[in-house]
Amino acid sequence: MKPVILFAAGPSRWRHWEAPLRAALSDAGIDADLVTETTPETVDFIIYAPGGDTPPDFTPFTRCKAVLSLWAGVERIVGNPTLTQPLCRMVDPGLEQGMVEYVTGHTLRAHLGIDAVLAGQNGRWSPVVPPLASERPVAILGLGALGTACAQALAGLGFPVLGWSRRAKDIPGITCLHGNKGLRSALSQAQIIVTLLPATPETENTLNAETLRLLPLGAVIINPGRGTLIDDDALLAALDSGRVAQATLDVFRTEPLPPDHPYWSHPRVTVTPHIAADTRPASASRALVENIRRGLEGAPFQNLVDRKAGY
Amino acid sequence: MKPVILFAAGPSRWRHWEAPLRAALSDAGIDADLVTETTPETVDFIIYAPGGDTPPDFTPFTRCKAVLSLWAGVERIVGNPTLTQPLCRMVDPGLEQGMVEYVTGHTLRAHLGIDAVLAGQNGRWSPVVPPLASERPVAILGLGALGTACAQALAGLGFPVLGWSRRAKDIPGITCLHGNKGLRSALSQAQIIVTLLPATPETENTLNAETLRLLPLGAVIINPGRGTLIDDDALLAALDSGRVAQATLDVFRTEPLPPDHPYWSHPRVTVTPHIAADTRPASASRALVENIRRGLEGAPFQNLVDRKAGY
Repeated sequence: MKPVILFAAGPSRWRHWEAPLRAALSDAGIDADLVTETTPETVDFIIYAPGGDTPPDFTPFTRCKAVLSLWAGVERIVGNPTLTQPLCRMVDPGLEQGMVEYVTGHTLRAHLGIDAVLAGQNGRWSPVVPPLASERPVAILGLGALGTACAQALAGLGFPVLGWSRRAKDIPGITCLHGNKGLRSALSQAQIIVTLLPATPETENTLNAETLRLLPLGAVIINPGRGTLIDDDALLAALDSGRVAQATLDVFRTEPLPPDHPYWSHPRVTVTPHIAADTRPASASRALVENIRRGLEGAPFQNLVDRKAGY
Repeated sequence: MKPVILFAAGPSRWRHWEAPLRAALSDAGIDADLVTETTPETVDFIIYAPGGDTPPDFTPFTRCKAVLSLWAGVERIVGNPTLTQPLCRMVDPGLEQGMVEYVTGHTLRAHLGIDAVLAGQNGRWSPVVPPLASERPVAILGLGALGTACAQALAGLGFPVLGWSRRAKDIPGITCLHGNKGLRSALSQAQIIVTLLPATPETENTLNAETLRLLPLGAVIINPGRGTLIDDDALLAALDSGRVAQATLDVFRTEPLPPDHPYWSHPRVTVTPHIAADTRPASASRALVENIRRGLEGAPFQNLVDRKAGY
């Protein structure tokens, strides 16, 4: 009997994903029924992305071997009490590459003072040479797949990188810190802070009034992680006091960010519309199919979510 | 007798260079007389940067073992008929690092569409995901120390890099092209073009009306090399026609760039005031002293200029 794969991520996504998913299945030699509707009891794998307001009921999917998230962030599904099947996060090499480009580009933008260059095209020749990257410490909060890739890219360009994670890690070329003391140490040294933690109750408001006060004057914040990592009011106050010189934010508690949100009009905030790490259907389909292959062969899944940790 | 080193780069530079030069000499264990004025016949080494309008006369420096340029570009001295001593260019690791940061930063700025992001902070949430770097070919014209370092940094970030040089080269991870045919091939494929050629009669107007026509529509030009590499009128015409979408220029035929130059007011030109690769006194002093050590020991000089090629 052919395995049945239910694509449960909405009709608009189906248009972008059907062809790459079928191509990845065919490349892997897997003959499956890839469908958008079927009897729950027949489904072997669910490819899932949240949509709508009603949380889905996974109870009737009795033979389902795994729920495969289309996104890296699983905070909207991990707490679903009907989900008893294994849940896997997306770790898409295309997404990781896109994140590295976003973080490296906005870090260099801050480092080189590109905003001031663009605003200063006034005929006045005033050479100001920025310090070298080696004199500009960067902190990466979160050392998962994305944080580690960004840390390594920035270290490769010569930035001293302080990486912080909840649990102790060891990554060559990165100063790895952990725990509350490690967070304080990272924040008090870094001139540029990149937040790439998962959204969990523990990481909520990691940057708040108290932690923002630890930053050197004129620090820059880049948040391509999750909107909940930052206390928005505290960040706006830190921007107004000059403690934080600039913030580039890609993720928000409410998305789309409402047109009247103060971030849009703040002269030292750059809003990007959740584009830092878009899942790329071609490479992501290969990652999904690899987990389907593992499920069919009884091999351990990749990127299995730890329900208790929430990611 | 102590070797005599004449610092002939002007009093304002002396203020920045004296301390790092003395430190580098001391670190190398060289006991020398470092002076800004002395009898020419006693001088063993000249540290030189062009200044003023009168070309210097090197004839009386009869025991001088080498003229050590403070800058990477030697076009203002290489043709001096009184210069019979060996001439060495500056290859400063700090300068190279600064150039890599400038080129990588402005390449990612173009790649990520950062100018449009900054101009579009209007409350409208319009996600546009840029292609990955792997889909954005970059051409580096000039594969000297600086061009090679930039090519490698961009290839490391995933950009397909086409490197072009006058003579054939072979650099791992870079598609190396040379000659006229190679130039046409590089220009017709690249979406971002970085010019890092030396200023020689051969490289003058490498980007002109004819070669600019080869570029894909909407190409971006970054010139941190030399002002003479680009025919300014042809570039302005290519910007106005849309062939070139944006140009970021750090070097000009006349510097400072006059306040009424059309580059300053062009909406799609970014002027930076010759800051891409500033020589950094600490690391550059170590490079100068290494050549002084070689001269004293009769060892071959590093970065000796080929007078005929002009660099």
